Formats: sequence, structure tokens, C-alpha cells
Amino acid sequence: MALPDTQSEKDRRGLALSRVGVTALRWPVTVATATQAPKPSVGTWSLAVELPAEERGTHMSRFIEALQAWAQPISGEAITALAGDLRQRLYSQRAYAQVRFTYFRLKKAPVSGREGYIDYEVTYTYDDRVTDHPLSVRVVVPVATLCPCSKSISERGAHNQRGHVTVEVRGQSLPSLDELITLTEAGGSAELFSALKREDEKAVTEQAYDNPAFVEDVVRQVSLALEKLPGLSFYVVEAENFESIHNHNAFARRERTF
Amino acid sequence: MALPDTQSEKDRRGLALSRVGVTALRWPVTVATATQAPKPSVGTWSLAVELPAEERGTHMSRFIEALQAWAQPISGEAITALAGDLRQRLYSQRAYAQVRFTYFRLKKAPVSGREGYIDYEVTYTYDDRVTDHPLSVRVVVPVATLCPCSKSISERGAHNQRGHVTVEVRGQSLPSLDELITLTEAGGSAELFSALKREDEKAVTEQAYDNPAFVEDVVRQVSLALEKLPGLSFYVVEAENFESIHNHNAFARRERTF
Amino acid sequence: MALPDTQSEKDRRGLALSRVGVTALRWPVTVATATQAPKPSVGTWSLAVELPAEERGTHMSRFIEALQAWAQPISGEAITALAGDLRQRLYSQRAYAQVRFTYFRLKKAPVSGREGYIDYEVTYTYDDRVTDHPLSVRVVVPVATLCPCSKSISERGAHNQRGHVTVEVRGQSLPSLDELITLTEAGGSAELFSALKREDEKAVTEQAYDNPAFVEDVVRQVSLALEKLPGLSFYVVEAENFESIHNHNAFARRERTF
Amino acid sequence: MALPDTQSEKDRRGLALSRVGVTALRWPVTVATATQAPKPSVGTWSLAVELPAEERGTHMSRFIEALQAWAQPISGEAITALAGDLRQRLYSQRAYAQVRFTYFRLKKAPVSGREGYIDYEVTYTYDDRVTDHPLSVRVVVPVATLCPCSKSISERGAHNQRGHVTVEVRGQSLPSLDELITLTEAGGSAELFSALKREDEKAVTEQAYDNPAFVEDVVRQVSLALEKLPGLSFYVVEAENFESIHNHNAFARRERTF
Repeated sequence: MALPDTQSEKDRRGLALSRVGVTALRWPVTVATATQAPKPSVGTWSLAVELPAEERGTHMSRFIEALQAWAQPISGEAITALAGDLRQRLYSQRAYAQVRFTYFRLKKAPVSGREGYIDYEVTYTYDDRVTDHPLSVRVVVPVATLCPCSKSISERGAHNQRGHVTVEVRGQSLPSLDELITLTEAGGSAELFSALKREDEKAVTEQAYDNPAFVEDVVRQVSLALEKLPGLSFYVVEAENFESIHNHNAFARRERTF
Repeated sequence: MALPDTQSEKDRRGLALSRVGVTALRWPVTVATATQAPKPSVGTWSLAVELPAEERGTHMSRFIEALQAWAQPISGEAITALAGDLRQRLYSQRAYAQVRFTYFRLKKAPVSGREGYIDYEVTYTYDDRVTDHPLSVRVVVPVATLCPCSKSISERGAHNQRGHVTVEVRGQSLPSLDELITLTEAGGSAELFSALKREDEKAVTEQAYDNPAFVEDVVRQVSLALEKLPGLSFYVVEAENFESIHNHNAFARRERTF
Repeated sequence: MALPDTQSEKDRRGLALSRVGVTALRWPVTVATATQAPKPSVGTWSLAVELPAEERGTHMSRFIEALQAWAQPISGEAITALAGDLRQRLYSQRAYAQVRFTYFRLKKAPVSGREGYIDYEVTYTYDDRVTDHPLSVRVVVPVATLCPCSKSISERGAHNQRGHVTVEVRGQSLPSLDELITLTEAGGSAELFSALKREDEKAVTEQAYDNPAFVEDVVRQVSLALEKLPGLSFYVVEAENFESIHNHNAFARRERTF
Repeated sequence: MALPDTQSEKDRRGLALSRVGVTALRWPVTVATATQAPKPSVGTWSLAVELPAEERGTHMSRFIEALQAWAQPISGEAITALAGDLRQRLYSQRAYAQVRFTYFRLKKAPVSGREGYIDYEVTYTYDDRVTDHPLSVRVVVPVATLCPCSKSISERGAHNQRGHVTVEVRGQSLPSLDELITLTEAGGSAELFSALKREDEKAVTEQAYDNPAFVEDVVRQVSLALEKLPGLSFYVVEAENFESIHNHNAFARRERTF
């Protein structure tokens, strides 16, 4: 006995939908790297397709089937392939696939060489509705920033804090995750580390003091590095400082479409 | 003795910034209403201006001064005025002002008439960089949705759940917050209430069962209501269901620029 | 025709429940102060009672009715009265009432005297199951901390950051919210402000540099102040630093039951 | 040239601290399972030790070194061993180690047998200050619940929703993660799945309708299953329903120390 297929009914309201699908879907993933084995992580997915005006609904279980069948290390190519599979399985002209995950890098402390992980939140988005290029990569990079104003006006010390630099790029040719993180970390007053011995803490403290940067400076430094990359069609850089002297944050933003 | 003004230094990197300012700033607010006294709430603000390429930084304390001097009930007009003040105080061509807050409505249960509050997350955004109209209002409206597929295939019952419908509008003439919430609540299978006696719970349960709606249906119903409003230059509707049978959410989205 | 009352059925599983009720309930509130008019805010409530082994369920709508009928400025006395009302309305031996809200204080910058708000997350909890005293007040106070180690080992500068100091007290006689916040703010390297002109920023930067404090120091300083209060039966102090040189936090904790 | 060791200074305030350490530390982990290879995940750690009254501070970098040296699949034994290492490296009488992570299970849909992942938030905590047993395991299990009252009073349908059941156990002998999840999932009206075809959705809808459960019922059903486990010294069960007819949640809680 066939069960009714409510989703396949005709819709007469005449309104197309840009996205229908699933979101907040958590799934184990691995992440492709340029030089190492794929790194495991926990993915949070949104998967969707465009729905024409005359169709009442989409078939949500097919998104899960597509993800289950896909099972590849995350990369731009792999996400693009997943979007292609969604178009086919759901008979749609346009697909949307987004995954967020934590990416780890093992970093060495600057003097002692002690190793420890730093975590970065990464988002890959494929969206057929974006006109310049459908694939984007976004990464949130934590840095230390030291305030140039505070340094210049104070007889001793300078306020500093953790900040988040968010970079998103689209284009024909994208940097690797590690390249993107490395160029972004260079835009703050100092990089962050998890394992710092006293000699390292001294080095990082002095480096930050010698290299003050407003959020405006951070955004411009990272933007300068992105401007040199070939193949981008779009970038946005945003810096947000968890100011140590305020209970609010300072932020700056620049975006460019080529 | 004058303190150095680091922010006012010339910048030679040649990169303009679209926004520099403060964010995650919490501040007591009141919200203007059409027919009642202004309602108090807790605001979370982002305030920013555009920064020309040749200026190193903005003067962050002026955003706080502008907010402190402003002190008006929140409305489209008032946010627009605040943005104008930011342009003046910070000598900038373009300003950005966003505030999020919880808005309450006292609702009566459908049978017993018992009263209780329902909360809605509201965001006003003024952005000189948006080309169709700088002011937008967004509201997140919680509703109940009952799955048409589950109802049609099951001999008894139907899965249902809480969902969030997010509506954002821009244009020359915007509906009041209460109008926007009322038309959005009508798009689900049933409205939510905080105080429900047994006779109310029976009524709401049966209403939801008699009025099944996919996320696709919710977005289309709310979009139909928005299409009838005069004066909009843009709307987006997004419905997200916290599916009772899954640990992920279903969602649908439609946007239109006039 | 009477509707069945499923909650009032007998339960034969023999298991009493310590709390049954409602949570994540948002409601407009006002907060009593010692010297000013009550301050409005947005409350998030949990309300519950103990359920004996032989009763199947509680009547959830009565919690909403109790809150709607209560309508008082939040204070220790008022929360205690609400808990008493819950015991009566729900025929229970023990009640639980908790409310969280944002509390604002208007602060003057240390040199310029400019005014701006700082926000504090406050929680009042009344719990008949707590044996030393049923009422507690908790507040999260943001402060600046400057690292004594970084200062002592570095030739210039010292890392500093925003931190949260969480204080919770119970007892016969509790300090006012403002007293509790004031003594807690004194435990960091410097207080936070929203509006700081350059002369203020210089003062705060130098004060923090002159007053370095580990999370351990912060917890001990605040604990010393709490030890001097009469009438406490319990306190806990926790400090958490959003370290500017790490992407993790440092924390310390002390609690004492008298 | 030796750098000063500020942390090792004597403290004269006479106040011992129950915990000093690091928190919100993210680190790649694997999770031991009874029958499969260790499963990778992303861990969020808190690591701490007790600090005697006479010591000013702890040496935070040693927590990172301990975690880096540890590198084992997460299990009760492994967390206990890590805590032992912290006591040694930091010369402390008592240690604290907590890790939270997402754990995945591949589940088969009840009729079609389609496979998909469901995610569970798990926390292991080792705390030398807990008197009955230092090690606890906590898991948050999402389920569907259907309201017995709504079913009994309504002529058709019944409101249902996703809920979270949180279970925490301590004792000499703890169930495996999979055993704990399985017994908890049995306490709701129906389990959740990620991949459901129409025949599965029908089965789950009808199962939930046939098996209504208040939050009180869920807590009692799960508690009955825990009461049968040998070797527990403590358990707590909490159920929270994201009510489909309200914008607040219903919850119930039971705890027992043996």
C-alpha cells in the first residue's frame, strides 16, 4: 500500500523558495589537509535546494542520504561534489551546502618549542545563488591585540586582549586552510599558543607590546595579504576585540568584490 | 599636556573600511509601541561608521556618547536619527546602527482568556550601505507546526514541534512590530501561549492538527501576507522547525527585493 | 463536560521527584534597588516544586499564573514570597524559584567623569532543598586583570584581558546587589567602563599595570571582602580570565560554607 | 638568567582555593568504545588542582603539558589516570579533570533500516573533592515526547516535541556510554533518527502517540532503569521538553545518592 506523498502536491501560491532543507545537523567529518592525513572533527551542516513555485515541499530525508553516501574528507572540491549530488537527488536547479567545524593546528611555543593545539572555527559554503563564485571558505582566527592608543598615552603598560579575526574568501583559486590561517594570524599583535613556558610568555608579551594594532590595523594588514592572492573574486575581513577595559567589543570590517 | 591622538594618524595602506565601531554593547532601552507606553528591555548594540582609506582609526568613545545622548524609545525614526548623529560626531559619510532586544506581548489563552507573556527577539538595523532602503526590522516569532506528511501517513497523531519564523523587512513604510508579529504568527499551525488551562490546550492541540504546515508552507503563508503590505522594498522569511522526530532542524527561506 | 486530569493520576513507580516545573520562561521584570526606582529588565525564570512519589504530574499552568499574579520588583523577600505562593498553589512541601536578568549600573569614567552603563548578569535562586539557607544571589562581574608573571618577566608591557568574576552568596543577611558588585569589582586589576576618553584610558591602563592580579589573587581578594560580611552561610567566588595570549581561559575558585 | 617565578611566592591571605587551572580549552580527542575503534571528536576541557593557602598561584602551562603527554582514548580509567598525573605535575593533593565532547551513534531507521548519525553531548568529570566517588559520566540524550494530557483531552492529535534527557552517574562500576544512551532513549515517547523514509515516519509518529510521557514520566522511567544498575553511588536524571505549544520548557528532575 503506497503512503501518500504530501510533499509532491502542486502548490498554487506562486511563490518560489530560495532554500529548503535541513540545518543544525551534526555529523562526524574529516578535513582534508595539504600535507597531512585528513583530520577528524565534528561537522554542523546545512543542506538545501531551491524549490520551484509549483512544488509544495522537498524530500528532507534525501539530504541525509546524500550526506551518508558522500563520506569524503572536507575540501572545496568535495563540498562542490556534494552540492552536485543534492541537485540530482532532489531534482533542483540550485543547491546549498554549508559545514562548520573546529580545525586544530599543533603549534610550537616561540622559545621553548613546547607543542599544543590551537582551535579555529571553519565554515565551507557552496551556494549556487552566489553570482561571483559559489564556494567560500571562512575561518575565525583568535589573536592577541595591543592598543596603540593605550600604549602611546600611558607611562607604563598598554591594554591588550584576545580578538577574533574572521576571514572569508571566494574565487577560482582559494588558499589552503593552513595558508589562510597563517596569513590571518600575522595580522594581530601576537599569535596565540596553548603551551607557553615563562620564556615564551616573556617573548609573546614583548612582541605584542612592540607591535600594537587597532582592529582597523588588523583588518588592513590581513586585507593587504589577501589582495596579493591570485584568483579571489571576493573577500571580507572582520576583527573583533574583546576589549580588556570595556565590557563591549571593538570591531572593524572590510569587504571587496573583484 | 595634550595626549597623542593615535587614531587621527594618516594611513598609507590605501584601504577603506566599511565599518569600524563597537559591538556587543548592552544598554537599557525602551521600545516605542503604536498604542501603549514604551516598553522597557535590554538592548544589544552595534554602532559603526565607514572609515576612509587615509584615516588610521575611529574614536570609539564617541559611539558611547552618542548612545548616552540619544536616550529615545526605539523606533525606525529614532534609529535613523541615531545614525545621523553618528555621521556627525564621527565625521563619516555612512553610519551603521543595530539593536537587538526582547519584546514582550501579553497574550490571552484562546478559551480561558488567561493572560501571559510571549517573548520575541527583535532587531532594528540602519545601514547607509544598503541600497534599497537603509532601515530594516527583523523579528523571530515562535510558532507550533504540525507535519502534513506525518498526519497524512499515520493512522493516529502527527509529529509537531516548536519552530522559529524569522521575518525581516525594509522599505519606505514598515508595519509596526505588533502588525509584523501578528501576521507572522498566523503562518504556523498554531500560535504559542504561556498560560494554557486544559480547555485551552485542547483547543490549541486540535487547531494545530487541523492546520498542518511544512516549513515551506509557513514561509509561503507569511510571504503572502508580506506581499500585500505597501511600501516594502525587501523581505526575507525563514522558518526553522526543531523537529520532534529528528535531532536536526528543517528550514525554508524566501527573499524578495522589489 | 469535565476534561480528564491526567496529571492527577496516582503513580505507582514509587519515585519522588525533586523538581518539576517550567524553565527558560522569559518575562518582563523590574529589579528592586536600595536607593533608586526599580530598574526594568528581562527575566529568564525556572519555577518548580517537589513532586511526591504517588503523584503522576504537576499542573504546569499554575506556575505561569503564580508569576502573573506576583508582579513585584525582584528582591530576596519577593522571590521568597513567590516560592511560598508556589507551595500553596501546587500543594507541595518544597518550592524552587530562579530568575536571571541583566542589571545595569551607570558608571562615571575615572578622570573625565563621562557616564555609561555596565551590565551584570544576576541570578536569584530560592530553593527549599538547600539546607544552610534557601535564598542565594549570584552576580557575574566583568573586570580587567593584568598578569603578575607577565609583568615581572617582561622588559615592557604585560598581558592583560577581560575576566569574569562570579560571586554567589547565601545567608540570613545578604548584601545589596550594588554592594556585592562594588566589592567584586575591587578584586580585579581595574574596573571596566563603557565611556573612556583618552585621559581615562591612560588612568585605567596604568592602574591595571600597577595592580597585577592572577585569577588566584582575584578570588582571594573578593573572598577576603566576603569574609567580612555578617550573616553569610555560604559563598563561592570564581574568576575566569579570557587570556589574551591563549585561546583558553584561566580560572580559580573558592567556596566556603559557614 | 633565571626569570622570576611569581606563582611560587608565598601567600599570606590564608585562603585555600578548591580549584585553579584552565578551562574552555579545546583539543582533539578520541573516545573509547566497548566494541569499536576509538571515535574521534572535539574535546572541551577544564583541568584544575587544589591550591593550598600558602601558595600564591599554580603553573598553568603544566596542565597543557599533561594533556599533551596523556593522549589516550577517553574513558573513565583514562580520565582518572590524567587526574593522577595532574596531582603529580602540580604537587597538589586533589585534582579536577572534565571533558565535554559530541559522541555519535549510527542508528538504523525502524522500518527501512536507513542509517544516519545521532549526536549526544557527553561529559566526563573526575573530581577528588566529591565524596561518594570521584568519577562521573553525563550524557544529554535527545528524545521525542508526546503529552499524555493533550492526548487525553483532545479529539484528534496530541502535542509533542523534542526533549533533552540529561543523565549523570557516579559509582564503582559505571555503564558504558552506549548502555547509558540506550536506557535513556527508552524513556521517551520515541527515539530520534536522522534518516526517516515515509514508512519510518509513520512508525515513529504512531509509536509516540501510543506511548505518551510527561517529563515526570520520562525521569521516572529512566530512573527505574538506573535503579537496576549495580555499582552506582549517585545518579541524577533531568528531562526538559521544548514544548511545542509554549515558548518555554517543561522540566523534571530526580537525584539519588546511595
